[in-house]
Amino acid sequence: MSRGRLFIISGPSGAGKGTICTRLLEETEKLFFSVSMTTRKPREGEIEGRDYYFVSEKKFLEMKAGDGFLESAYVYQDYYGTPKQMVMEKLDSGNDVVLDIDIQGAMSIKKVYPYGVFIFILPPSMAELRERITGRGTEKNESIEVRMAGAMKEIAYIDKYDYCVVNGELEEAVCRVKAIIKAEHSRVSEDIYELIEKYKEEI
Amino acid sequence: MSRGRLFIISGPSGAGKGTICTRLLEETEKLFFSVSMTTRKPREGEIEGRDYYFVSEKKFLEMKAGDGFLESAYVYQDYYGTPKQMVMEKLDSGNDVVLDIDIQGAMSIKKVYPYGVFIFILPPSMAELRERITGRGTEKNESIEVRMAGAMKEIAYIDKYDYCVVNGELEEAVCRVKAIIKAEHSRVSEDIYELIEKYKEEI
Repeated sequence: MSRGRLFIISGPSGAGKGTICTRLLEETEKLFFSVSMTTRKPREGEIEGRDYYFVSEKKFLEMKAGDGFLESAYVYQDYYGTPKQMVMEKLDSGNDVVLDIDIQGAMSIKKVYPYGVFIFILPPSMAELRERITGRGTEKNESIEVRMAGAMKEIAYIDKYDYCVVNGELEEAVCRVKAIIKAEHSRVSEDIYELIEKYKEEI
Repeated sequence: MSRGRLFIISGPSGAGKGTICTRLLEETEKLFFSVSMTTRKPREGEIEGRDYYFVSEKKFLEMKAGDGFLESAYVYQDYYGTPKQMVMEKLDSGNDVVLDIDIQGAMSIKKVYPYGVFIFILPPSMAELRERITGRGTEKNESIEVRMAGAMKEIAYIDKYDYCVVNGELEEAVCRVKAIIKAEHSRVSEDIYELIEKYKEEI
């Protein structure tokens, strides 16, 4: 059986990663989402196992000590990590896994799993990004400027990624990411060598 | 304007490259087919400018001396070549170009144009390939064995290609090649750096 592929999706907040991931999961067979684990408390509306696995610091550090994460980070006094076992089991059983993760996390994954396919989601323009962030209505002006500058810093990492998809029109962006997933399954890989061995037996 | 991409399609005779290319050209925007030039005489049913450009040896060698080919070969006392100008003009003007070419030709293209995307079309099995070759009804048994052995030799070059598509079911194969074309247009490339420069001006 052919091994699944790991797709790592990053991009600045407001670029629309989350919406794209949701659509992918709804519309793509044998594709699973990797849910992160965190020690921070659930916010209103967040659901255990959908948004995060919420665990104690003790449990998190035990898993970390046992090499239980593909990557983990300590941000604003809380731990976040990508549990390794679920990802590896899905890939081993021929399923694809998609990770929605920030740039630092993606770069950590790249070190331990260079076979991943790294996709960067871009906004169509910074004006549009500003509008999307402002439109959420939860941010002060100052915070928006900080986030816009942060977005530019993130975008500077784009050359570490394999693909980038501009999310201007959602349908088109989803269609592009799906094409990337399909194309990556046509890569010359070990599966092909197995097929060729079969050819040799036949001839 | 973004530069077009060059897609090089190879595979053993009977794998179905020609049919796939025809479908791609019918169904893909801004995609052009590069027609080869040859000094051999047209066979019955072959059309100038569709199957080949038929030229004299004098004309061919003049073009070759003037660096007019991306690649050329001398096979069974006739010259064959891929005219360079049309390919480059199309790519420069933002169109994609598809080349249906044998492995030796593809390897020559790779040396002069490594930015090409190399796609190998495989039959679902050697039994199926044999059936397809035999089904054409124009070959003797001995010739079929020679061609089957030739196909295996060609397939051994698959690791020089970026992608491979198994042409079992035509619709699925066409869909896969289209996904590859779409995905390759989402590669992190110079176009993206232009977009990022625009972002910087905006912020």
